[in-house]
Amino acid sequence: MSEALDHTSVAHAMQPDDTPELRELYRGFAEQNLLPLWTQLGDLVPIHPKSKAIPHVWKWSNLLPLAQRSGDLVPVGRGGERRALGLSNPGLAPHAYISPTLWAAIQYLGPHETAPEHRHSQNAFRFVVEGEGVWTVVNGDPVRMSRGDLLLTPGGNFHGHQNVSDKPMAWLDGLDIPFCQQMDVGFFEFGPDQLTCLDTPEFSRGERLWHHPGLRPLCGLKDTVSSPLGAYRWEHTNAALTQQLLLEEEGYSATIAPGHAAVRFVNPTNGSEAMPTIRLEFHRLRAGVESATRRDVGSTVFQVFEGRGSVIMSDVVHSLEKGDIFVVPSWIAWSLQAEAQLDLFRFSDAPIIEKLGFMRMETADGTFPAN
Amino acid sequence: MSEALDHTSVAHAMQPDDTPELRELYRGFAEQNLLPLWTQLGDLVPIHPKSKAIPHVWKWSNLLPLAQRSGDLVPVGRGGERRALGLSNPGLAPHAYISPTLWAAIQYLGPHETAPEHRHSQNAFRFVVEGEGVWTVVNGDPVRMSRGDLLLTPGGNFHGHQNVSDKPMAWLDGLDIPFCQQMDVGFFEFGPDQLTCLDTPEFSRGERLWHHPGLRPLCGLKDTVSSPLGAYRWEHTNAALTQQLLLEEEGYSATIAPGHAAVRFVNPTNGSEAMPTIRLEFHRLRAGVESATRRDVGSTVFQVFEGRGSVIMSDVVHSLEKGDIFVVPSWIAWSLQAEAQLDLFRFSDAPIIEKLGFMRMETADGTFPAN
Amino acid sequence: MSEALDHTSVAHAMQPDDTPELRELYRGFAEQNLLPLWTQLGDLVPIHPKSKAIPHVWKWSNLLPLAQRSGDLVPVGRGGERRALGLSNPGLAPHAYISPTLWAAIQYLGPHETAPEHRHSQNAFRFVVEGEGVWTVVNGDPVRMSRGDLLLTPGGNFHGHQNVSDKPMAWLDGLDIPFCQQMDVGFFEFGPDQLTCLDTPEFSRGERLWHHPGLRPLCGLKDTVSSPLGAYRWEHTNAALTQQLLLEEEGYSATIAPGHAAVRFVNPTNGSEAMPTIRLEFHRLRAGVESATRRDVGSTVFQVFEGRGSVIMSDVVHSLEKGDIFVVPSWIAWSLQAEAQLDLFRFSDAPIIEKLGFMRMETADGTFPAN
Amino acid sequence: MSEALDHTSVAHAMQPDDTPELRELYRGFAEQNLLPLWTQLGDLVPIHPKSKAIPHVWKWSNLLPLAQRSGDLVPVGRGGERRALGLSNPGLAPHAYISPTLWAAIQYLGPHETAPEHRHSQNAFRFVVEGEGVWTVVNGDPVRMSRGDLLLTPGGNFHGHQNVSDKPMAWLDGLDIPFCQQMDVGFFEFGPDQLTCLDTPEFSRGERLWHHPGLRPLCGLKDTVSSPLGAYRWEHTNAALTQQLLLEEEGYSATIAPGHAAVRFVNPTNGSEAMPTIRLEFHRLRAGVESATRRDVGSTVFQVFEGRGSVIMSDVVHSLEKGDIFVVPSWIAWSLQAEAQLDLFRFSDAPIIEKLGFMRMETADGTFPAN
Repeated sequence: MSEALDHTSVAHAMQPDDTPELRELYRGFAEQNLLPLWTQLGDLVPIHPKSKAIPHVWKWSNLLPLAQRSGDLVPVGRGGERRALGLSNPGLAPHAYISPTLWAAIQYLGPHETAPEHRHSQNAFRFVVEGEGVWTVVNGDPVRMSRGDLLLTPGGNFHGHQNVSDKPMAWLDGLDIPFCQQMDVGFFEFGPDQLTCLDTPEFSRGERLWHHPGLRPLCGLKDTVSSPLGAYRWEHTNAALTQQLLLEEEGYSATIAPGHAAVRFVNPTNGSEAMPTIRLEFHRLRAGVESATRRDVGSTVFQVFEGRGSVIMSDVVHSLEKGDIFVVPSWIAWSLQAEAQLDLFRFSDAPIIEKLGFMRMETADGTFPAN
Repeated sequence: MSEALDHTSVAHAMQPDDTPELRELYRGFAEQNLLPLWTQLGDLVPIHPKSKAIPHVWKWSNLLPLAQRSGDLVPVGRGGERRALGLSNPGLAPHAYISPTLWAAIQYLGPHETAPEHRHSQNAFRFVVEGEGVWTVVNGDPVRMSRGDLLLTPGGNFHGHQNVSDKPMAWLDGLDIPFCQQMDVGFFEFGPDQLTCLDTPEFSRGERLWHHPGLRPLCGLKDTVSSPLGAYRWEHTNAALTQQLLLEEEGYSATIAPGHAAVRFVNPTNGSEAMPTIRLEFHRLRAGVESATRRDVGSTVFQVFEGRGSVIMSDVVHSLEKGDIFVVPSWIAWSLQAEAQLDLFRFSDAPIIEKLGFMRMETADGTFPAN
Repeated sequence: MSEALDHTSVAHAMQPDDTPELRELYRGFAEQNLLPLWTQLGDLVPIHPKSKAIPHVWKWSNLLPLAQRSGDLVPVGRGGERRALGLSNPGLAPHAYISPTLWAAIQYLGPHETAPEHRHSQNAFRFVVEGEGVWTVVNGDPVRMSRGDLLLTPGGNFHGHQNVSDKPMAWLDGLDIPFCQQMDVGFFEFGPDQLTCLDTPEFSRGERLWHHPGLRPLCGLKDTVSSPLGAYRWEHTNAALTQQLLLEEEGYSATIAPGHAAVRFVNPTNGSEAMPTIRLEFHRLRAGVESATRRDVGSTVFQVFEGRGSVIMSDVVHSLEKGDIFVVPSWIAWSLQAEAQLDLFRFSDAPIIEKLGFMRMETADGTFPAN
Repeated sequence: MSEALDHTSVAHAMQPDDTPELRELYRGFAEQNLLPLWTQLGDLVPIHPKSKAIPHVWKWSNLLPLAQRSGDLVPVGRGGERRALGLSNPGLAPHAYISPTLWAAIQYLGPHETAPEHRHSQNAFRFVVEGEGVWTVVNGDPVRMSRGDLLLTPGGNFHGHQNVSDKPMAWLDGLDIPFCQQMDVGFFEFGPDQLTCLDTPEFSRGERLWHHPGLRPLCGLKDTVSSPLGAYRWEHTNAALTQQLLLEEEGYSATIAPGHAAVRFVNPTNGSEAMPTIRLEFHRLRAGVESATRRDVGSTVFQVFEGRGSVIMSDVVHSLEKGDIFVVPSWIAWSLQAEAQLDLFRFSDAPIIEKLGFMRMETADGTFPAN
């Protein structure tokens, strides 16, 4: 890694000489629920972000069989609510947190199973790496889940799922559970055990109102906190990425780096993040492309949708195949390499970082903003 | 018109007794470029908006033959720049202003003709009521113009047009020329006589980057003043309106009034107006529907895209057919009646009115905001 | 004026050969309320802003005696409403418009006179170049008017004035009357003939709630279109300008150019313009300072509060003394020269220009933005 | 506590029957860094916020002697950086966090001592409950610290302190250290050991530019993330609160509840929070006033500045005297009672909660927003 990305990490703290008087003072602190800053400054106020979370890759080939086995052994229903396997960052055990802010899980629904309705403050999405046959019902609006689709369940919306097919289905769930837990902001409410709507339309009502490009329904002129377009279809995502690469070939500026196309899933009422705490993106790298090494404040998770390649995190190379999921904790240097064309779904806590003024990024060219 | 929509218009001004001293004073005013408020208050500060512009309908059956005849007699090229017939509000003569803020014109381009490139501060759009075969080249990006499409040329973009077909084509141009004229904000610059790009692609580069619903290219994360999606296709507009009426039939809230579907053409970077001064919308009324009588601050223009019906302005009924264009000046009461399903393109100066805090609307239910 | 500020103004329009057929066509246009673009393009879409308004200076020494004489001859009361002398731009006669968007007037109130209450959509302010003894009552809140103070009457607020002293008082009124007139947005309503409050407190309720720097009352957390702080006192304006020049002397960045201090009067709920259509500022130039020549889109008016100097507009030098008022129309080159320390109150239509995307500025260094 | 504030807390989780197969499955989970949702749902997604933090009061009469004793025994200087005693919430031990997001400490500086310069991403403020004689130097700008003043050190600004008097001084420090720690966003950098400026002016340069009410320097037209007005003086805070109560007596709406005046410390460039993560307010209750019981999402800390009364948290009454500090964790019911006029400084994490869409509040009247 280049020198520009290097930091000198000076320990900073101070321990006065141990005397009876000091011990007496420290006893007084303890009695009064006080802790001196001087002994712990380095932990509280580090030189740069040093996450307890560590870079980690979960292999789809390991995850899927365990999800399937759960389908055999664990019922889905009221109480447990969801047959979901949380990806637990080894540095954050025993919590099922993939990063300090984000939750990621494989959810598994067997043929003709139903997951009952509930709602919570936590923002949630589902991304479908393979399969079909499940509808998620969000506030009474059934939303088809098919390969490559991104489906939203913003905080406060009742939701349940049903599998109407004869095959099981597994998908990626993402939520801001750790953030909400640490911030003490979460409410939860049970809904009906049965889904409020059993229809299985091709398109949800949210899509029928909102998936017309550049067209805003006059009945929806009030901006919403989260996207009213609850489903982002693979057909559109794929077309957008394809066009960026074609435009690049034709000589126009359309990609974020040579051979690297990317879109963000946004709220059409304001063009900004689809949900207030979670950034959602899709990236495509042409075969042979390597992305520049960088590090960012905030944590991000990727799932390989298609293709083959590797991610380098803190100088360690991890090979990637379809379905693999990995997390890049805050301020960890990372880059991607595409062996075959590499399609990646991505989510992160960047909206939190940016709205609160903590955004910082470093590449070989330097750090931005500088302080 | 209902009582709620009635205003008492009290003349307010004052004329002191005519004396030699007063005449002497008024002479002094004239010498010093002063004018007393007390003699003219009612004109300067009216009880309610009393536009010089008057409600008026232009019949497509009259406009089109004159446009065609212009094609025979008037060349298009450098100097005159465009073969465009401005719709001149009878109350605003001798200006070719359809309202105090808006310009509307029929532009006509014969087979294989070219209108040379130029650019100006004025914001412009084109709406195609019939025909095809023309491409407008906006900053080097050729944009197909087909029936039902809305095409943008926001201020500051070079643009020219070419007709590659063997048939002439006529369309509606809309600009904020009167507003820019009165505000003294306009710049104009000639571009090349020949178009900078002669390609005739099905989709412009702006569309290829931006017409994917809810997907924002990462190369375009900076918000833009005007929409980067220069073309809004009929296929999408029609689908959006169709879905609103279907959802209404299914019992969901999707229209702005029973049987009245409507969309606004917006800037996908922020979900707001497609251009900073001109609001752009499309309305569809089911056969038999009458809209509620209302009046608004600001002026608006409609063109009938398809269908049959009438508009009532200040209690006068005007029948409407395909292509007809009408203007509703500020604070004129109006309503629509659809004999057959009525499709209307609409544009207005509402962004100016709203951004500057002057929005006001009146229906039978009252006035909003109240003062 | 420097070359960088020069523009070549190419006439652009086209007149086809005069033939019987063309005359017939033009008759058809006239019958159908159409006007061809090609004959009038240069007027409608000029190469650069060419305002009908012209640069002009009104001398306080001429204005004040006429205002005083009006006090003798013209009553103030219901109907005429105000004893105000509108400054009429010689290029905009017979309208009492100082620019295409702005109204400026000298208002005069004799000892113990009252101007009755009314309200209107137009935004208004008063600036006091000399005198005291008048209270303006805005929505029932009496606001003292003293030398150097800026007082606001945003659109929609009832207001009347009373002079409680034994001396007459004259001040500058500024409104967006021409803009509202051309946009057809104005409503007017009479209030009581007698003022709703005859108190004469030192500070208005608006000030008592809002004039504490950086402190927002919790009862006022909702942002307002116009400033809730209806009065900006000379004591604060003077202190702010004094501090900027002192900081400059101490070597810190605090002025907009060497020796040129300036403040903008803002809405404390959002830090932006005090009223939605009118920018309000105060400028101070040290003796000997000359400001750089520039031109801007939009019109601006200055009143000399104190000091001596000159303004150069379109290469013509006009000397300035206390009370003198001058207007700089759109895209007219101007600069200031301070013979003695020069204090100037300023207002302009910049909020309209900027919110609608038409801002452009030119100095010897170039044009911004470039197109 | 009223019924409206009551919640039924249903445990929600599910434990399938313990079988060898399930144990095998769970072993597989552990090997692959997975954790099932169904066993832990209630902890991850609680029915309502159940903070680990607990309501607690620190008595100034206990804090001050310990701070003074630290002054005797613990040097201040490079390494430990600050002689600060962190208030450690008993529910969050062993961390010195007063709430999951906020840090509060008593900082103590002896006569003629200096705390060296450093900077960090964490946002900081100081509030002075008593004393004077210290200047905090923020990015080279010395800011006087006197009784009742609020001083800001937004993230990224170098800062150090010096006591120029012969007396020690203690004050309250507040930071977003726990939030930054959990989010992995923090950077820290040492500055000079000696202060970059030893001047002791009455007013900082930030104040001299920005503390003029409603006046924005033209050299500072770009909005800033944090307030450029680094100091909020007691003189203004006191005046604002005094005026609110006077206006209430005169019959006008100026307080948030009868006898309860309050101001928020804001950024004058946008009228919003003074720093992006920490809300800062000052409250005054007339003698005898009781505030309505409420609970809020998010945590808040108060320090009694003057007066006598009590706070009720979760139905427990804690008496309050000058200097006492207490924390109200998320969703804990609280109210205040003023025995004598009660002045309270307050800070909270509300900006985080609100910007991310998690704001919720409950009173006897109900919950807002409802879900």
